[in-house]
Amino acid sequence: MTQWVYSFGDGKAEGRADMKNLLGGKGANLAEMSNLGLPVPPGFTITTEVCTYFYKHGETYPAELEKAVDAALAEVGRLGGGTLGDPAKPLLVSVRSGARVSMPGMMDTVLNLGLNPETVEGLARLTGNPRFAYDSYRRFVHMYSNVVLELEHSIFEEILESEKETKGIDLDTDLEAEDLKRIAELYKTEVNKRLGKPFPDDVKKQLWGAIGAVFGSWKSHRAQTYRKLHHIPEDWGTAVNVQAMVFGNRGDTSATGVAFTRDPATGEKVLFGEFLVNAQGEDVVAGIRTPQPISKIVRERSGAKKPSMEEAMPQSYAELKRIAERLEAHYRDMQDVEFTVQDGKLFMLQTRSGKRTAESALKIAVDMVREGLIDKETAVARVDPQALDQLLHPTLDPNAPKECIATGLAASPGAATGEIVFNAEEAEKLAADGKAVILVRVETSPEDIHGMHAAKGILTARGGMTSHAAVVARGMGRPCVSGAGMLKIDAKLGTLTVGATTLKRGDILTIDGATGQVFKGRVPMRQPELTGDFSTLMGWADQIRTLRVRANADTPDDAATARRFGAEGIGLCRTEHMFFEADRIVAVRQMILADALEDRQAALAKLLPMQRHDFEAIFKAMEGLPVTIRLLDPPLHEFLPQKDEEIAEVARAAGTDPAKLRARAIALHESNPMLGHRGCRLGITFPEIYEMQARAIFEAAANVEVAGGRLVALEIMIPLVGFKTELDTLKTRIDAVAEALRKEGKKTPPYIVGTMIELPRAALRAGEIAQTAEFFSFGTNDLTQTTLGVSRDDAGTFLTEYLARGLIPRDPFVTIDRDGVGELVKIASQRGRSTRAKLKLGICGEHGGDPDSIRFCHEAGLDYVSCSPFRVPVARLAAAQAALTKAVDGD
Amino acid sequence: MTQWVYSFGDGKAEGRADMKNLLGGKGANLAEMSNLGLPVPPGFTITTEVCTYFYKHGETYPAELEKAVDAALAEVGRLGGGTLGDPAKPLLVSVRSGARVSMPGMMDTVLNLGLNPETVEGLARLTGNPRFAYDSYRRFVHMYSNVVLELEHSIFEEILESEKETKGIDLDTDLEAEDLKRIAELYKTEVNKRLGKPFPDDVKKQLWGAIGAVFGSWKSHRAQTYRKLHHIPEDWGTAVNVQAMVFGNRGDTSATGVAFTRDPATGEKVLFGEFLVNAQGEDVVAGIRTPQPISKIVRERSGAKKPSMEEAMPQSYAELKRIAERLEAHYRDMQDVEFTVQDGKLFMLQTRSGKRTAESALKIAVDMVREGLIDKETAVARVDPQALDQLLHPTLDPNAPKECIATGLAASPGAATGEIVFNAEEAEKLAADGKAVILVRVETSPEDIHGMHAAKGILTARGGMTSHAAVVARGMGRPCVSGAGMLKIDAKLGTLTVGATTLKRGDILTIDGATGQVFKGRVPMRQPELTGDFSTLMGWADQIRTLRVRANADTPDDAATARRFGAEGIGLCRTEHMFFEADRIVAVRQMILADALEDRQAALAKLLPMQRHDFEAIFKAMEGLPVTIRLLDPPLHEFLPQKDEEIAEVARAAGTDPAKLRARAIALHESNPMLGHRGCRLGITFPEIYEMQARAIFEAAANVEVAGGRLVALEIMIPLVGFKTELDTLKTRIDAVAEALRKEGKKTPPYIVGTMIELPRAALRAGEIAQTAEFFSFGTNDLTQTTLGVSRDDAGTFLTEYLARGLIPRDPFVTIDRDGVGELVKIASQRGRSTRAKLKLGICGEHGGDPDSIRFCHEAGLDYVSCSPFRVPVARLAAAQAALTKAVDGD
Repeated sequence: MTQWVYSFGDGKAEGRADMKNLLGGKGANLAEMSNLGLPVPPGFTITTEVCTYFYKHGETYPAELEKAVDAALAEVGRLGGGTLGDPAKPLLVSVRSGARVSMPGMMDTVLNLGLNPETVEGLARLTGNPRFAYDSYRRFVHMYSNVVLELEHSIFEEILESEKETKGIDLDTDLEAEDLKRIAELYKTEVNKRLGKPFPDDVKKQLWGAIGAVFGSWKSHRAQTYRKLHHIPEDWGTAVNVQAMVFGNRGDTSATGVAFTRDPATGEKVLFGEFLVNAQGEDVVAGIRTPQPISKIVRERSGAKKPSMEEAMPQSYAELKRIAERLEAHYRDMQDVEFTVQDGKLFMLQTRSGKRTAESALKIAVDMVREGLIDKETAVARVDPQALDQLLHPTLDPNAPKECIATGLAASPGAATGEIVFNAEEAEKLAADGKAVILVRVETSPEDIHGMHAAKGILTARGGMTSHAAVVARGMGRPCVSGAGMLKIDAKLGTLTVGATTLKRGDILTIDGATGQVFKGRVPMRQPELTGDFSTLMGWADQIRTLRVRANADTPDDAATARRFGAEGIGLCRTEHMFFEADRIVAVRQMILADALEDRQAALAKLLPMQRHDFEAIFKAMEGLPVTIRLLDPPLHEFLPQKDEEIAEVARAAGTDPAKLRARAIALHESNPMLGHRGCRLGITFPEIYEMQARAIFEAAANVEVAGGRLVALEIMIPLVGFKTELDTLKTRIDAVAEALRKEGKKTPPYIVGTMIELPRAALRAGEIAQTAEFFSFGTNDLTQTTLGVSRDDAGTFLTEYLARGLIPRDPFVTIDRDGVGELVKIASQRGRSTRAKLKLGICGEHGGDPDSIRFCHEAGLDYVSCSPFRVPVARLAAAQAALTKAVDGD
Repeated sequence: MTQWVYSFGDGKAEGRADMKNLLGGKGANLAEMSNLGLPVPPGFTITTEVCTYFYKHGETYPAELEKAVDAALAEVGRLGGGTLGDPAKPLLVSVRSGARVSMPGMMDTVLNLGLNPETVEGLARLTGNPRFAYDSYRRFVHMYSNVVLELEHSIFEEILESEKETKGIDLDTDLEAEDLKRIAELYKTEVNKRLGKPFPDDVKKQLWGAIGAVFGSWKSHRAQTYRKLHHIPEDWGTAVNVQAMVFGNRGDTSATGVAFTRDPATGEKVLFGEFLVNAQGEDVVAGIRTPQPISKIVRERSGAKKPSMEEAMPQSYAELKRIAERLEAHYRDMQDVEFTVQDGKLFMLQTRSGKRTAESALKIAVDMVREGLIDKETAVARVDPQALDQLLHPTLDPNAPKECIATGLAASPGAATGEIVFNAEEAEKLAADGKAVILVRVETSPEDIHGMHAAKGILTARGGMTSHAAVVARGMGRPCVSGAGMLKIDAKLGTLTVGATTLKRGDILTIDGATGQVFKGRVPMRQPELTGDFSTLMGWADQIRTLRVRANADTPDDAATARRFGAEGIGLCRTEHMFFEADRIVAVRQMILADALEDRQAALAKLLPMQRHDFEAIFKAMEGLPVTIRLLDPPLHEFLPQKDEEIAEVARAAGTDPAKLRARAIALHESNPMLGHRGCRLGITFPEIYEMQARAIFEAAANVEVAGGRLVALEIMIPLVGFKTELDTLKTRIDAVAEALRKEGKKTPPYIVGTMIELPRAALRAGEIAQTAEFFSFGTNDLTQTTLGVSRDDAGTFLTEYLARGLIPRDPFVTIDRDGVGELVKIASQRGRSTRAKLKLGICGEHGGDPDSIRFCHEAGLDYVSCSPFRVPVARLAAAQAALTKAVDGD
């Protein structure tokens, strides 16, 4: 027969910590603490299977449940000394929900259950403390009415306030037993009035009402939404914990509190937390009274006057400290505990792994390895890679006052403060004068890149997480808030308006790219400090991971940053970014405007030495490592000005006829440039462009070698291949360039030619494409756009709503869409490798820096991920965790 | 041992007609005719395997080949009465290439091989006709030098002309034996001068030279390109046919000619063809002399004076007729034969299935079934579905003089003549006055639809085979030439310039949508006449095919046309086209401009009765058949004007602030609208639009039923689904509309809800989508765009070049890309049906009217194809042929 109820208490329990699926997190840990002999008030857990049964059988319980609950309750009474509903020796219990994972969407706790007009008298008698008894009673009626009967808090708060007013007092503590008794009666009358039935005095009714409310809350709208957003299966169900009450509100030798076994902010090994004398649990949270620190050292540091628990209740403190150490040693993790001291005796009410900041997580993980508590693998698994970003970028001082005027997307982490500028030129000019500036744009385009580089941070009104601004900012490591749609930007007037606030050019603005918030004025910051713990942990991660980590880097600077952060090569060097620099764009435009092949070749001849120079610097920075260079990818019109004024200006600068320039810009205009004349399609129709690039690559590598540098492993990458014939045609051309150089008597370095897989067709035809391609790099940005048929530039209008409504679990441009895009990656990997067993596989889309996507890449058998330089540590850690997935199961 | 050489002649042969792979088409049919006992000059075929061997072994021959050729040659001599190179009894041969399929890219024929200074004397002696001998000799030297030695024709033509000039004569026939002898000598001297070595007199050298040239021509650049374009495998190789010469140039009892067993233009059962007395084969083709008709009746009809073969050579004619009938009965198909009459004796030199016009193919196929020659299946397989278009549309009189001024894409078949107009309004106005107009636009947009409807034909300068103009024109059955890039259109000035020609508004223009040609002025036309044969053949096709054929139809007119052409339902009814009509667009724009839900609902309330009315008319037209209605698909900005003038005008008409209109247009602007906020994404974010449409559909169906009409089978289709959650959300909404109607006491018809599969993700996730979807319709236009990452509007710049260079075999927007898009269709079909075994599968992209794509759909197990109404007969026939694929192998 199924066991529906599991008892605990008195140094033993029917459950264990590893029975979370059956008992929920709270129940399993209560059982575990009992088994450890820790002082846990007796109680029992009704299993999650009852919840499942409840919903499978029209919200009814298993026949045997009532008897089992009665038996368990009797045992609790025996251990706790009392009986539910017995006025002579009343037993009071708490009833709490407890799913496998903590779920804020669910029912809270009901305390003091079992009180009614008779038992409250008994309690008063028994404790000799009528005020305590009636205080508990009015708390119970309020809580039960709110949590179980679903009446609003304000109903009861109003009654309480009006009574206090009548009596002319301010503090709840000034209410006397009689007042509290009257208030409880008023509460009950109000409940009767509102619900048309009396508040239940029958304690069994109270208990089953609370149990039913817990199970009912599993299907509440809030809980369902929460589950949808956090991918928690509907059929997990919740458990119900019923536990004998202990009272922190029985006078000055009673208290209640929460504690962390280490400082959750810094990781320091000190008992950290707060407690309140003569209070019940909810008082600590409610914030009416200010809780006191638990440890003396923490109190001293904070300058608080009231004594710490260590000073006020040295014995209970000593026991709590002993238990905390015991729990840490037992769970091998920092614990977050709840406790109550009743008449000088300590009781433990909950323990669980404590939440912590990135800084703390890092320190605790490394410390615990040193202390021998955990091994390196566990340490690596414990630190959230996403949170590492906090450690690599400045953050806002959490305690500083600040005025948030707008919120956009957290597009690139880090905080920045500076003067507002509205265009790239101004950004560059002011930055050259040593000023810190924030570049504010409706959206950015490739022409803004130098300004973005000059700015401390970037703020845009339009564009998603993978908009131009976001992608480039992350690549550069610049903080960025994108898509702050409430901003009205008038670049001509030089104003930024949001609601009633208008800021002007030169006004100071602060952005937090980690939260997406925008603040008026300057906000103090904390600079990142990379401790030795950081490199220790990264070293362990590197030992564990099998996936290699490269960086997307287009400049020597990026390359150097990437290498500093531990990149093992460049996975994507976009050659077009080089084309946008001021001294090149002129030649690029000449090339585009050329009518004849010769004119185009003449323009390309001007670009050749520049590209060669770029490559030389990058190859030097990456000595000895692989470098994947992607040949020209974007449509040519991206290089031409679009607006009439700009056209006139550019034409003047280039000595061209504006009409011709305009005509060319119009001719190059495309309805859907993402699906247009770009990538290898340019290489096919204008082969001289790719030939110039190939020559620049080969000559640069040769020059570096001649100068004594170690050769990089050259990987030439053809973008947007859909047909094997495209790759064949272009590889032939590239090989011909190498051959021509050899004939000219020049050295040519070894190189391989591969392709981006960024079109569904390429993924499907990977088997034949791999006959020619020597490596694949998954361009998951474009592959996501084509597979889902979603333009990331245009997705804001509907994808945000999809996310909000749970139609899609995650932004597919942030975390790879495993079911769709992921299947294509797997198909391509499998087909590619069945043609060419040693085919090198990597990913170079934005997903390369996202931990969940990195886990996917590991599972799919890729060789490496490539991400922006600042994401490299994140990727290294995520890759290690992916490798550990089977060994250490994440929480 | 491999047999490298196959002999034929004297009423028997080693080969057969079914040995085309080994002997090539020509060789196999020569063998077959020999076996039939027909008068075929003896000869032999060197097999295609020799060609394969030749290229596998460094262009050398199998060791045994020479001996086999010698033996076969001896046999030819025995039968033909002579020996190659024997001056006493010279044997002359022809050498011709012959692959499995006819390949214009390959080597032509060499006639009269075996002549040299000695044998020509012998031939003169033997025939008593020196002029014939030397005429043959100079022809041989010219032909051999051109075909084998690769010297240009002009070299020899110049010598001939200069000799004629010297002699003061005009006609070749006036040259005497001596002249011809001298000319042959001059030819040889010139060859020696140009090549630095003498023309070969050694007849064996001549023979092996010709054989080598045939094999060499297999890898010529021209042949390779031809093979690439026609998907002919490289390893098929060609055969070589060596055959004893017979001479049609031995005097007035000799002749040569070509004949069709039926009229290739009309299909009439009459011996059709041309012949020349005293001539060799190339004279018929060369066009120097005018050939005479073969049959008397044809001569009389044409009004030619010179006697027909029937009259001039009644005996030979009678034998030719007998043989023609024999061949037709044997091959069960209309034959195209070559023959020569030598001194009154008829010889057959070739037979093959004759090429024919659509009209002729249809008549011949139906006649032959009636004659008992073939069965219905064969008849159905014989008619090219593509060619059917010729029968459904007016065509230009092929004999009329015409001035082609430009060529674009053959975007929609049929010919049209009319006055040039440059915008839709003008087209409508002039058409209302009863004038025929051709609408000329740079490109068309949805706002031009009423003008396209009013015009007789459409001509655009931009846009491919699936541009807006092309798609809409095909749907309407309007002739269209698109993408005629050489046209310079200035709509403001009202001029159309191409090269030096400028046409003005009102000038007459003719377009041929079947060829893509544009003509100045009026060109006489032939109106289509659908004969009884047409419906007979279509009836047979309908009996054979298993694939159903529906039409894409958005209006009652389209629906009626579709039904007339045999459509079995509507596979795609695009509801947005209804929104563009003048009386609706105002309400549509109000809806788009609405700030609040209520305003949007008010605008939708105005649209509801209009949509309901549209649907009523369509449902009436399609009574009893299935109708698939696609809910709103295009991005909203398509409904707004874009240019400032238009905005001002529309704002005035709608009583709106132009600034607001402009702001909305800008806000709705997308970088890649194809991948933007459209399809079901609109339905999710603006559910009230789809709800209005669902209500209109249900109410319309109920009204038709109330009026006594038979219900259509309603299929409501959600476009652009990528995630099952999208379909779930929208199906719930649609069901709720039906439920609401029921609650209002209204009738709701049965309906099913399905989805377009037009995104790669949808194809991959078809298994789960089919949990909700009750049918799939493959939107292969968009599926091609996303799978290949190619915007069809922008593809012109590179796809044309890809096609020209053989990088892709076919335009993937015309014929489905089997390897990429096709695999996704198969994946989706298989996964969808594994969830829902009876899932209805169809295709509604442009591919639904393309025979090759229809074959694919049949193979993939789809239930139906849907195409534009005018393509329905094409699809019916193609579907039947697909069903026959295994039974009757196409040529």
